[in-house]
Amino acid sequence: MSDTKTLLQAFNESVYPVGGHSRRNAEVLLEAFRDIDGETASDMYGSGEVIERFQTDLAEVLGMPSAVFFPSGTMAQQIALRIWSDRRGSAKVAYHPLCHLEIHEQNGLRELHRLEPILLADKDRLITLSDVEALTDDVACLLLELPQREIGGQLLDYAELEAISAHCRERGIKLHLDGARLFEILPYYRKTAAEICALFDSVYVSFYKGIGGIAGAILAGSEEMTAESKIWKRRHGGDLISLYPYIIPAAHYFRERMPKMAGYYRDAVELAAMYNDCPAVATLPAVPVSNMFHVHIDLPKETAERIFVGICERTGVGFAHIVNAGPEGGCRYEVSLGDRYGEIPKAKLSEAFQLLKEGIGEAIAARQ
Amino acid sequence: MSDTKTLLQAFNESVYPVGGHSRRNAEVLLEAFRDIDGETASDMYGSGEVIERFQTDLAEVLGMPSAVFFPSGTMAQQIALRIWSDRRGSAKVAYHPLCHLEIHEQNGLRELHRLEPILLADKDRLITLSDVEALTDDVACLLLELPQREIGGQLLDYAELEAISAHCRERGIKLHLDGARLFEILPYYRKTAAEICALFDSVYVSFYKGIGGIAGAILAGSEEMTAESKIWKRRHGGDLISLYPYIIPAAHYFRERMPKMAGYYRDAVELAAMYNDCPAVATLPAVPVSNMFHVHIDLPKETAERIFVGICERTGVGFAHIVNAGPEGGCRYEVSLGDRYGEIPKAKLSEAFQLLKEGIGEAIAARQ
Repeated sequence: MSDTKTLLQAFNESVYPVGGHSRRNAEVLLEAFRDIDGETASDMYGSGEVIERFQTDLAEVLGMPSAVFFPSGTMAQQIALRIWSDRRGSAKVAYHPLCHLEIHEQNGLRELHRLEPILLADKDRLITLSDVEALTDDVACLLLELPQREIGGQLLDYAELEAISAHCRERGIKLHLDGARLFEILPYYRKTAAEICALFDSVYVSFYKGIGGIAGAILAGSEEMTAESKIWKRRHGGDLISLYPYIIPAAHYFRERMPKMAGYYRDAVELAAMYNDCPAVATLPAVPVSNMFHVHIDLPKETAERIFVGICERTGVGFAHIVNAGPEGGCRYEVSLGDRYGEIPKAKLSEAFQLLKEGIGEAIAARQ
Repeated sequence: MSDTKTLLQAFNESVYPVGGHSRRNAEVLLEAFRDIDGETASDMYGSGEVIERFQTDLAEVLGMPSAVFFPSGTMAQQIALRIWSDRRGSAKVAYHPLCHLEIHEQNGLRELHRLEPILLADKDRLITLSDVEALTDDVACLLLELPQREIGGQLLDYAELEAISAHCRERGIKLHLDGARLFEILPYYRKTAAEICALFDSVYVSFYKGIGGIAGAILAGSEEMTAESKIWKRRHGGDLISLYPYIIPAAHYFRERMPKMAGYYRDAVELAAMYNDCPAVATLPAVPVSNMFHVHIDLPKETAERIFVGICERTGVGFAHIVNAGPEGGCRYEVSLGDRYGEIPKAKLSEAFQLLKEGIGEAIAARQ
């Protein structure tokens, strides 16, 4: 705990944090509102130009008939699954064991909506076509997360994704996309968001992850589905009188960062290669398919933390703000690249990696 | 509809709108952030100084052990009632037929939480001690709204409120305060917020009504109750990574407007007297007990709208932005006073009321 705290302190004081766009502070809001006229009218309970225009723009980007802005993806996704469950008259929905709804939402899907999730695949691998083919016909909806964040942001081959979509359509199983990081995978798939969304019946995208907004999400689908989602948004307490404090930054950073997604992806591939050049280090995936990946180090968490704190102090490079214990005495952490990576002098980064190699080497020698 | 639209247009263009603090536009946010340092760290999923300090400050103001910030009162109140219901092992909760949960939340309390509301009293009167005495012991919680907004913001005598509280404690029925407008009634009751909250087990207050913030609410209660409410906040999708865009304005306008509540109340009493001096007009309550009241006019909605549009055009005074059809061919609307009322030149207001008297007189003469 005190070690983690020390690492977090060192990271927060680091001159060159490797991941993300910027610190999460009030400047994120101030920058987004710098050119906003004070006379700009607030949205009012889901109506008004500021929210309607953004919803129309995102529906077009996603190639879906309609889109609704939500304060959170937790709310948007539970509601999407509830709607498909009601349509099918079945409480059964299927998703990955490490799905956000399963591990980060205090069981809201069961406690509020009484849905019965079926966990597909194993924790450490993606859902495949054969997993989906094994589903019974009474499953109302399958949720796929692209990329699968908790296992390093892995992706299926696009052909298998298309086959899963075709299979679900044939079986009458609705397909929902957890697209929290959808925009981050477009460069790898070489597809537009609309091309990918065409494989799904409903889609959620986030505006504070790769986009770097403050909070908020879009749920897109048919006119009927999104109209129903607005009723559930009111029931959840998410139909706020004013959502513009999230919508205006979402629109601002979406415009600013969508064109940079290809660069974040290239940076991730470059950085992962540098990690994989270190002893006892492997990235997951070995070659990233988005702006994110996981780093696995065959050293105890505390040892890795000590090494990273030292590198922060000597080079100002902050590799990680938190390191988690992994299996077999190893450790792991997530890397998600944004604007900051490009601001690090290459020499600094090489120096930091040289120190990482040395630190790991010494730690390995010490244990032999 | 087109009439209402015309009235709304006239009101929006009026130089002297009578109710509220200001237009709901981006300036409300810009003003609140004008003195905020960009380095101010965001809250993170309910942690961090910006949210914890505000929660601590409000717990102190309300005299409750603990307080939690929510994006909406809809979310906060459903959760409070769910917690008390689980504690008692009973789905029965009691509230007024015009309670916000009953008429403005798309039935979320039933659809999400499966609670069974018991409607106390009639639509057109307050809940009294005898209504509460008639409750059976299996009722988990009684919600009281002070003031009762949908009937003009009426209030019980404080002694009866104390008696209801004592009765509920004796019977083990939790008492929850819908204090959306709690701060607006302190001048009439001549009590502190803490003195009133001491009668309740849980309290909700809003920051965009009398306070004039952007959105957001506080739920206050015991440490155990508020800790449980955070789990439900996550389930509802309300545990946003960043709530500071609502918290900073809530704190800003709370500081600015709490000292003005007595003035808003005095203004409401003064304005209601001017209304009651008009033919075919009566306010509910006859003498306001907060900054709000309802105006009932014994004329058709369309006639009243036409008169108000004319007054807007001739004096610039906007009496109402919307008028609703009432019983027996009459009409009614809500008045809620804030900063704007004090900015209207008294002569303008007298001129506007003179025109209102004449307009109503002519309309009455015309129908005879």
